[in-house]
Amino acid sequence: LEQDDYERIAKILKKHEIRYLLFTGGNGTMDALGKIYKAASGEEIYVGGIPKTIDNDIAVTDHAPGYASNAQYMASIVNDCNQDIKGLPIHVSIIEAMGRNTGWLAAASALAKKEEGDAPHLLYFPERPFSEEKFLSDVQRLYERYGGVVVVASEGLKYADGTPIVKPSLTIGRAVYFGDVSAHLANLVLQKLGIKARSEKPGIIGRCSSLHVSPVDREEAILMGRTAARAVLSKKTGMMAGIKRIANDPYAIEATLIPIEEVMLTEKTLPDHFINSEGNGVTEAFLDWLRPLVSSPPEHISFLRRS
Amino acid sequence: LEQDDYERIAKILKKHEIRYLLFTGGNGTMDALGKIYKAASGEEIYVGGIPKTIDNDIAVTDHAPGYASNAQYMASIVNDCNQDIKGLPIHVSIIEAMGRNTGWLAAASALAKKEEGDAPHLLYFPERPFSEEKFLSDVQRLYERYGGVVVVASEGLKYADGTPIVKPSLTIGRAVYFGDVSAHLANLVLQKLGIKARSEKPGIIGRCSSLHVSPVDREEAILMGRTAARAVLSKKTGMMAGIKRIANDPYAIEATLIPIEEVMLTEKTLPDHFINSEGNGVTEAFLDWLRPLVSSPPEHISFLRRS
Repeated sequence: LEQDDYERIAKILKKHEIRYLLFTGGNGTMDALGKIYKAASGEEIYVGGIPKTIDNDIAVTDHAPGYASNAQYMASIVNDCNQDIKGLPIHVSIIEAMGRNTGWLAAASALAKKEEGDAPHLLYFPERPFSEEKFLSDVQRLYERYGGVVVVASEGLKYADGTPIVKPSLTIGRAVYFGDVSAHLANLVLQKLGIKARSEKPGIIGRCSSLHVSPVDREEAILMGRTAARAVLSKKTGMMAGIKRIANDPYAIEATLIPIEEVMLTEKTLPDHFINSEGNGVTEAFLDWLRPLVSSPPEHISFLRRS
Repeated sequence: LEQDDYERIAKILKKHEIRYLLFTGGNGTMDALGKIYKAASGEEIYVGGIPKTIDNDIAVTDHAPGYASNAQYMASIVNDCNQDIKGLPIHVSIIEAMGRNTGWLAAASALAKKEEGDAPHLLYFPERPFSEEKFLSDVQRLYERYGGVVVVASEGLKYADGTPIVKPSLTIGRAVYFGDVSAHLANLVLQKLGIKARSEKPGIIGRCSSLHVSPVDREEAILMGRTAARAVLSKKTGMMAGIKRIANDPYAIEATLIPIEEVMLTEKTLPDHFINSEGNGVTEAFLDWLRPLVSSPPEHISFLRRS
């Protein structure tokens, strides 16, 4: 959409006497909403944003509805794969997490790790440059130690020079199609280390899994919708509903209103203190931040300990 | 393993006075067990097989434990993806099902379809030669009709001449590594039809999903273990436990014992009357056979009907 389009949208809203406009979505949606808000300034049109993205890349709000459920999905599948890999410790499994520019979902899988040797063993985020040498030596070391290794990698990994580690397979118009990072990494492990490797790429299966809805997430999604609706009905305009965290234990939040301009231009990536110093895992600070949002993965009864 | 190895295994069992040997697994496992059974003939060694494979390719038994839970997984994820695709009907999603030589798991996803227009829209099995032209015309037609299309494809699709549709990406020793059928089909849709397409490949995530365990599957797995254990303890040897279906409604089975020779050499593929005439879906006969094994996917509340 171009500037003309936003002005036309404002005119159409006015013509049809549409006075309340609520958009739910992520960064792109909030950007569009902000542009309509500007184009409609001076008119009696009240716009409000409801944050919702599994990528969790919306600025200012502590987190966005949608993320916690997909985070729960990631923790749950890696918890299950931990048993699969311990039961048949012959290969390296590379699981691809959604999030082209942010590692929030890959990071969430760290909740599955309960004790030394548990999956996930290695995490890779687009927030850190990807080093093939470091990746291969990490995998080699862990394979020798545990036999089965689970790697979780974000779909948008880049080298230090900023180029994606998997080249676009196809460009149609403005759309760019990348190959799978997980398949690429599994091939690297096979070819360079000669170790059996496979890739799993749940993709939209994670983002729509009805069995992994986080109860906290569901409640907060409703709260965000209600907050934004109340704002526009009381003639507050150009605001996105947001979450402000008050306390971690017991978990407490309050709903806030965030000027849409503060949201429009910024993409919230994983902050430095949530990524470990080697760039292949998360910190306790991240887990403390995440735990209240997600139910713990179930305990499995395992008689397959290797250590 | 070679013939020598089986004879050495039989000698080792005898030397250590191991008299009972139970193997649980699929075709390969039963083949190995049968060879040990032959090598140990004449000795007081009692061998028994416990069927267990998500691929459901073991002969004679009505079905094998492990299959129903992964079938439940396939039906559940496609039921969820149906909502995702209806909510954002812009692309074709190709979901890869495990099963290199059989389409049992791809077929199971058909349980997700509740009404006209629901996913899965197209299914492809290794039991039928894959035609690129027919696939593309099927996808084009359904895309024009529904906007969002869900295809479920078995990982081992082959052309009419028997060659796999995705060439091996790597061969290390005796191991052959194939590329992903789902990624290949998504690329075909993008390149030949210019329609947005993506691929999802849950892989081992489906085979180990603790949230999708079918209660019937769990009970039958225990029954198969008990049946095989009782057989060897009563000095019946060279038999695999199996399931004989007595009735569909209400569902009733009985445990049987099947001579291991009948299992060793045969791979059970989808029978003709379970595949539709176009080769891109299943028949009511298959769904009638499958329904008692799997809990129905949940109903979603949808206000996203397109028709």
